[in-house]
Amino acid sequence: MTKEKVAFLGTGLMGFPMALNLTRSGVPLTVWNRTQTKANPLALEGAKVASNIVDAVKEADIVISMMSDGPTVLAVIEDVLQSLKPEALWVDMSSTKPAEGRLQAAILLEQNITHLDAPVSGGTKGAEDASLAIMVGGCRDNFERARPIFKMMGRPVHVGPSGTGQLSKLCNQTIVAVTIGAVAEAMLLASEGGADPTALRSALKGGFADSTILQQHGQRMTDGNFVPGGLSKFQLKDLDNVLAEATLVNLSLPMTEDVRNRFAYFVSEMDGAEKDHSGLFLELKARNGRAS
Amino acid sequence: MTKEKVAFLGTGLMGFPMALNLTRSGVPLTVWNRTQTKANPLALEGAKVASNIVDAVKEADIVISMMSDGPTVLAVIEDVLQSLKPEALWVDMSSTKPAEGRLQAAILLEQNITHLDAPVSGGTKGAEDASLAIMVGGCRDNFERARPIFKMMGRPVHVGPSGTGQLSKLCNQTIVAVTIGAVAEAMLLASEGGADPTALRSALKGGFADSTILQQHGQRMTDGNFVPGGLSKFQLKDLDNVLAEATLVNLSLPMTEDVRNRFAYFVSEMDGAEKDHSGLFLELKARNGRAS
Repeated sequence: MTKEKVAFLGTGLMGFPMALNLTRSGVPLTVWNRTQTKANPLALEGAKVASNIVDAVKEADIVISMMSDGPTVLAVIEDVLQSLKPEALWVDMSSTKPAEGRLQAAILLEQNITHLDAPVSGGTKGAEDASLAIMVGGCRDNFERARPIFKMMGRPVHVGPSGTGQLSKLCNQTIVAVTIGAVAEAMLLASEGGADPTALRSALKGGFADSTILQQHGQRMTDGNFVPGGLSKFQLKDLDNVLAEATLVNLSLPMTEDVRNRFAYFVSEMDGAEKDHSGLFLELKARNGRAS
Repeated sequence: MTKEKVAFLGTGLMGFPMALNLTRSGVPLTVWNRTQTKANPLALEGAKVASNIVDAVKEADIVISMMSDGPTVLAVIEDVLQSLKPEALWVDMSSTKPAEGRLQAAILLEQNITHLDAPVSGGTKGAEDASLAIMVGGCRDNFERARPIFKMMGRPVHVGPSGTGQLSKLCNQTIVAVTIGAVAEAMLLASEGGADPTALRSALKGGFADSTILQQHGQRMTDGNFVPGGLSKFQLKDLDNVLAEATLVNLSLPMTEDVRNRFAYFVSEMDGAEKDHSGLFLELKARNGRAS
C-alpha cells in the first residue's frame, strides 16, 4: 500500500509540532501557512513547504487543517475546493462549533470529498509529545483511513457522526469550566475556614474529589498565579459554543449557563480576558467582597 | 516506648473494618458498639469487646469514635467524660459539621483531654484496604501522636486547627457534588447531540476534564444505574453542612447553593433519597423534559 500524501494547513503553536511529528514519522508531507516563514523550518525535517495553498493540497490524499476558528477553516475550504483530488479526505483538527463541522462536511460532500472533524485536547505539550486526545466525528471508514496519521499525533477516539468530535471538545470544556468553579469554592471555603489549602489538596489526592483541575488549577488559586495557561476569553468562547449547541438540541444546562455568565463578567468587568481560567477564583472572591 | 491503648467506639459499616485493621496491626484495642453483637467478631482477631462504654474507655490512651453524626458523638462524649484517663486523646473520625468538631474539642479541653477531628473519605472499600483519606484538624503534636494509628487505616494529612478536618471533608463533598453536575451536563449534551458518551469518556481519559467522577459516575449515567454507592440524601446533608459553614464565615458559594437545591428537589420530589448521587442526571433530564 502506497503511503497517502498529506497536506497540513496551518503551522501555528499547535499545528507546527503536529506537522513535525508527521514528517518525522515518514509521512509524505506538504505544509502551508499563511505566514510562510513559520512553516519553513519544517523543510529541514523533510516536509515540502508550499508557497500557495492550492499547490499544497492539489496532490494530497489527506488534507489536515489546524486553524484558529471555524470561519477561517470555511474560508480555506472555499479557496481550494476546486483544486482537491477526487477521493481526498479533509480532516479539520481546529476547534469549531459542531454546526461548523457539519457545514464543512456538507460543502465538501457536494464535491465528493469526505470529511472528519477531529479537534484535540492537550495543549502545545500534548502536540509536542504526540499525546493529544483526538476526538473524531464522521464516518467510521474515514476514521480508520486517517487513524495511522492520527496515531502519529496522539490518541484518537471515534465518538460518532459529523460534528460530534467538536461536540466532544465542548463537553470537555464545560467539565473543565464547572470543575474550576467547584475547586474555587472548595479552596475559598478551606482557606476562610482556617484549613491549609495545600494540605487539603494533598489529603484529597486519589479520592473522588481529585482531578488535574484540583491539583493544578487549585494550586494556581492558592498561589495567586493566573498567568495563562488556558485563557479565560477562550474559555468564555467555548462556553458560548456549548450553549449554542445546547440550544440547537433544546437543552438547558444550568451549571454551564452559570459559569458562562461568571466568565463573561470576569472577562468584561474584571480585566480577566488574558488571565488563566483558574482566575474564576478571583470572580468568586470579588462577589464575596474579598480582596484579590 | 509502650504501645498506646486504643478504644474504638462504633463498629458499623466503616468502623468495623477500621478497627479490624488496628487489631491486626497489633494495637492493644478495646472495642464498643451500641449493639454489641456487631463488635463481637473482633474478639476473634484479638480485640477486647467491652459490654459498656465506660469499660471501653477507662484505660484508653487514645479513644476513636466512628458514629453516624455529630450529635451522636457529643452524646457519647458526655457519657464517658468523667471516666477518661488524664492525657487521653480523643479522635473523632465521624463526619460532622466543623462547628460540632470544635465543640467536641472545647468540651474535652475543659477536662484537659485533647482532641482531633479526623473524618475519612474512601468508603467501605477504603476502610477495608486501609487506604482511607484521613483529613485531620487539631494541634500538630496530637496529630503526630495519632499518626502511627492513622497509618494503619489509611493516609493521614494534617490540614489545620480544630474543625478543619471536618471542613476538608465538606470541601471534598462540594467538589464531588458539583463535578457530578458538570459530568451530567456533558453526558446529556453528548448523547442528545449524537456522540457516544462511552467513547467520549474514553477520549477524555487522562486530560484536563478527566476524573473518577467522569469515569465512574459518568458510566452510571449512561447505564442508568443509580443503585448506591453514595446516597443522594447524604449528599444533600453534606451540602447543607457546607452551606452552614460557609454562612459562618460569611461566604456565598453559588455552585454549591445551586447543586444543593437540585439535590433537595431530587430527594424530595423525585424519590431520589436512596438513589446514588449520580442520579442528579435524572434531575437534569427531568428539568429538560426528557424521560428517565
